[in-house]
Parts: sequence; C-alpha cells; structure tokens
Amino acid sequence: MKTVNVGLLGMGTVGCGTYKILEMNAERISKSAGVNIKITKVLDQNFDRAYQMGLTDDYLTQYPDEVLRNPDIDIVVEAIGGIEPATTFMLDAMNNGKHVVTPNKAAVAAGYEELMETAKKNNVEFFFEAAVGGAIPVLNSISTVLQGNEFLEILGILNGTTNYILTQMGDLGLEYADVLKDAQAKGFAEADPTADVEGHDVANKLSILMALAFDEYVKPSDIPTVGITKIEKDDLELATKQDCKIKLIARAEKKNGKLKYSVKPEFIPVTHPLAGVSNEFNAIFLTGNAAGELMFYGKGAGSVPTGSAVVGDIMQIAKKIK
Amino acid sequence: MKTVNVGLLGMGTVGCGTYKILEMNAERISKSAGVNIKITKVLDQNFDRAYQMGLTDDYLTQYPDEVLRNPDIDIVVEAIGGIEPATTFMLDAMNNGKHVVTPNKAAVAAGYEELMETAKKNNVEFFFEAAVGGAIPVLNSISTVLQGNEFLEILGILNGTTNYILTQMGDLGLEYADVLKDAQAKGFAEADPTADVEGHDVANKLSILMALAFDEYVKPSDIPTVGITKIEKDDLELATKQDCKIKLIARAEKKNGKLKYSVKPEFIPVTHPLAGVSNEFNAIFLTGNAAGELMFYGKGAGSVPTGSAVVGDIMQIAKKIK
Repeated sequence: MKTVNVGLLGMGTVGCGTYKILEMNAERISKSAGVNIKITKVLDQNFDRAYQMGLTDDYLTQYPDEVLRNPDIDIVVEAIGGIEPATTFMLDAMNNGKHVVTPNKAAVAAGYEELMETAKKNNVEFFFEAAVGGAIPVLNSISTVLQGNEFLEILGILNGTTNYILTQMGDLGLEYADVLKDAQAKGFAEADPTADVEGHDVANKLSILMALAFDEYVKPSDIPTVGITKIEKDDLELATKQDCKIKLIARAEKKNGKLKYSVKPEFIPVTHPLAGVSNEFNAIFLTGNAAGELMFYGKGAGSVPTGSAVVGDIMQIAKKIK
Repeated sequence: MKTVNVGLLGMGTVGCGTYKILEMNAERISKSAGVNIKITKVLDQNFDRAYQMGLTDDYLTQYPDEVLRNPDIDIVVEAIGGIEPATTFMLDAMNNGKHVVTPNKAAVAAGYEELMETAKKNNVEFFFEAAVGGAIPVLNSISTVLQGNEFLEILGILNGTTNYILTQMGDLGLEYADVLKDAQAKGFAEADPTADVEGHDVANKLSILMALAFDEYVKPSDIPTVGITKIEKDDLELATKQDCKIKLIARAEKKNGKLKYSVKPEFIPVTHPLAGVSNEFNAIFLTGNAAGELMFYGKGAGSVPTGSAVVGDIMQIAKKIK
C-alpha cells in the first residue's frame, strides 16, 4: 500500500489531536483512504509536546524548510495558528507543490483570496474544514451536497467559549465576570479571552462561511462585530421573560441580491433549533432555496474534535493523490 | 463551457424537484460545477407531469434504452422508486458506462452490494445522498470529513410521516388513527402509509447509514423493526411525565466490536438534541471517537429538498467528468 507523507507545522492543541487520531484510527484510516498516512516531519520551536506524544528527534525540526521544501512530503498541515508566519508558510508550501490543510481560521479569513489563488495556480488542494465549527462538516457540505442551492441565510453559533459563558449566565443567573473566571479555571476560556468574547473569532469564521456559501469574500474587519462583554444578568432575565435565549450569532442574509452580515448577541426564540445549542457546542443553521432549513451541530473546538476535521481533509487529499 | 447530459428515469416527486432546481439555479450550478448540466432525456410511462414542467416530446421517452444506452448521456438519475425495475435499470446504466445518482432508499438498501460492486467494476460513480435524510448532507459527511472516525453510535429520526404523527399526538393529545387521517389529508402521509408507519422505510435508511459508517452491510429485513401503529395517547402522556418525547428511532451501536441495531419507538429525554426535532423534520445524531457528538437536521423528504441532494450528487460527478 502506498504511503502519503504529511508534514505538520506546530504540535499545539490541534496538531496533537491530529497526530493522536492518525495513530488511534490508523487501521480504519488506511482502509478507507486506500493509502497509509504518516506524519513524517513536525516543525515546532519546543519539542516537549512532541516528545510527550512519543515522537523521536528524527521526526522533529525547528527549520520550516525541512517541511515546506521536503521532497518526500505530500501534504502540509499548518496548525501554528495566527496570521503570520502561518500564511507565509502555507503559501510557500503551495508554491513548492504541497497540498495544504489547516484549521487556522484567522489566517484563512485574512488571506482567503491569495491562498485560494495560490492553490489554484499551483494545482494543489487547499482544505480548511476545521476552521469553521471544528468537527462539524459544514464547509464540505456547502461545497458538495448543497452546492446546487442559492443560500438565503446563515446563522451560526461559532464560538464555544462565548456560548458556554452565555449558557452559564442564563442557567445560573450569574454575571459575566464571574462566569468568565469560572470558564477560565475550567479551560473553556483562554487567559486572554479577547478574540473570543469580542467576537473576532466568530467574524473570521463568518468570513469563511460567506466566501463559500455566497461566493463573496468579506474581510473579517469589515463585518460589524459586537461581542458579549456588555451582556448583563438582567439581559438574560429579560430574554427568558420573552421566551428567548441570548446567543452570539454570526448572521449572513442575501436580500434582493445584496449580502448583509453581522456578528452580535441576539435574542433567539426558544422554539428555534439554535436555542437548544448549549455550553461549548457550536451549530450552523442554513437556509437554501432548494434544501430549505438545515442545522449542523457539534463540537466547535478541542484537540481531537478539531483534529477529526483535519484528518478528514488529509484523507480526501490522500485519496486524490492515490 | 462543456455540457454534462443527464438522463432522468421517472418524473415523479423527486424527478420534478431535481428538474426544477436545475432550471431555477442554473446560473449558480454551472458557475460552481464549471460545466452546464442539462436533462436531455426523461423516461416515464405517462408524460402529464413532464408536460406540466414544460418539457416537449423530443425530451420524452417510454423506452428505457433511450436513456440507459444513449451514448450522449453521462449521468443517469434513477427516480422511479421501489426495488424493481429501478435496480435493473441502475445496473444496466452502470454496465453501459453511465454514472448513476438515486434517491431510492429501497433499491439502494436491498441491492447495496451488487450496486457498489457494479459501479466499481465499471469505474463509474454511484451517489445516493438523497436516499437518507433527504436534503441533509449526512452520507457525504460520513464518507469525507468524518471518515477518520470510528463511529460509536448513530441515532436517527429518518421518517417525516411518523415524526409528524408522533409530534401531533404529543402536542394535541390525540390518538394515532385521528392524526394519521389528518396527516393524509395534509399530504404528510400516503394513502397507504404501511412502509412509513411500520418502520420499513426507516430500516432501509438505517441499512445504508450502517454500510457507510460501519462498513458493514445489514439487509433491511434483518433489522429488528417496530413501527408506531401501537403507540397510544397514554404512552405519550407517560413520556411527558418522564420529561421525554417518543420518537421512532433508527439506532446502531458498536460495542466490543459488535454492531447492534434496531428501529423502534423510544423515549428520548427532552434535553437530548433529537427531542427538539418536530413534525416532518429529520435528524441524524452521530458519535465518532474523534469528532464526538454531532447532529444533522433538516428536511428528510419533499420534492425540492430531496432534489437538492440529487443535484448536489450530479454536480460532484459533473466536476469529475470535467
């Protein structure tokens, strides 16, 4: 059986999840893909996590070119996060004929047009399913099964941290600051939660969703974005009185040919399928002019759930290489 | 721009929906697929519905071979329904080098192994996304984004008629026979509802889901199946008292390497995401060993929603032909 070699940039949360799945499900993966898939080189600045995963020194490097220009590597997984150097690494990998997979929403949203064009120019695949909704197969569904639809509306709960905070505030009647502290202690919120609670993470994901569903790229910084830091206990009580939940909603609607979009906290009636999406779960609610209303629900973050989508992307490319 | 020609077997509910979408969304479809997609031949015994859709006689035939052996046709869509002659037509189309798309769950579930082998042998594509969950992109997701997972459990609400009846019985406190009559009047149940209410339709869909998710084909007739005809108003009242809903659940679980499966009415706690799936909506709740819990929700039937998945399949094949 042929082997497809993968180079991994960054052994962080998603890198570790990806590596773990490729080991844990190796038999199913090679049977389903029809090829073996091996991570043969890992770039990181610090090898502690790689050693913990059982990787030895011959797999590890601190030199990007040992992945990006390695003639034995077919697919590069960029799991460093952030816009740079991630974007430069991805472009470089493509220009060296490598297929690229990434869960990096900030880099995909910021560099969408250049990344897509560079992949096309080099005739390589560029997959980023894990960038929106973690384990949830929403991007692939938009581009395959649903591609015959004109999309009318997309509503998303796309950030687990903020959904956890809003759920806990509502369920326990607590104030924002107290729940945030608790979420940080439990690992559901980062030490610096700005990108999550101010809505920037959600804006990145909405930018990617709109590019695929509406074929219209909008820079994340051009999406009107309001986070959840001003939400108070009283707001949630008012919502409850009106049979609603407050959710941080990414919204895109096409009306009279014009795309409207926003990220902001919204009152969602309890009868709406999105109202039942609690705590760290994510969901995307789509309306297509043929499919009608659809909802995708699942884990939007986490090492192994996000790795699940990265591995799915790697396998799709591996099948094409075969 | 190249044109991919489609032959349509059967201008019934799904055939009309498919035709409608290809007309209505023609611009988006050819832009996204990179080819034009045209239905060039339609087989039916009666041309009334085809005439209503605006098709003229040169598109219509009563002779299967004018589709199955037509050298100009690239993709055959089988939308006749039932096991025969649908299965024979699909095999014949494949043996003549045509790609095949179908929403026909009865035929796919009954002939799964022969159909898959025949497609493989002839090196043609065989897609049937619409056979399970109508518009919901669950089969493709299992085979692409989620393919790196070992699946632990699948629970499905896979039949709109029975879910509508159970929802109405619960919400309005009515008996089965009364709701069935009302559902028939509203077009949510067929004049002969046996395949739906006895669970056979769901067993077909579960057979297909298991074949893809667990790589294990189980004949629908080997799936223990109980329908909803014995459910009484009192059962629903008991469920409500226990904070549950009654749903007709297709269930498959892998435990200690052994697959267990059933179709039967079950008590589902109101806190479970499937409990909120009401009336004619369908949903599939999956657990993967990497992705964790996922749910897909949408319209499981209907002319245009089911046609949406048929068109998605056609477009995926059209892209490969290009």
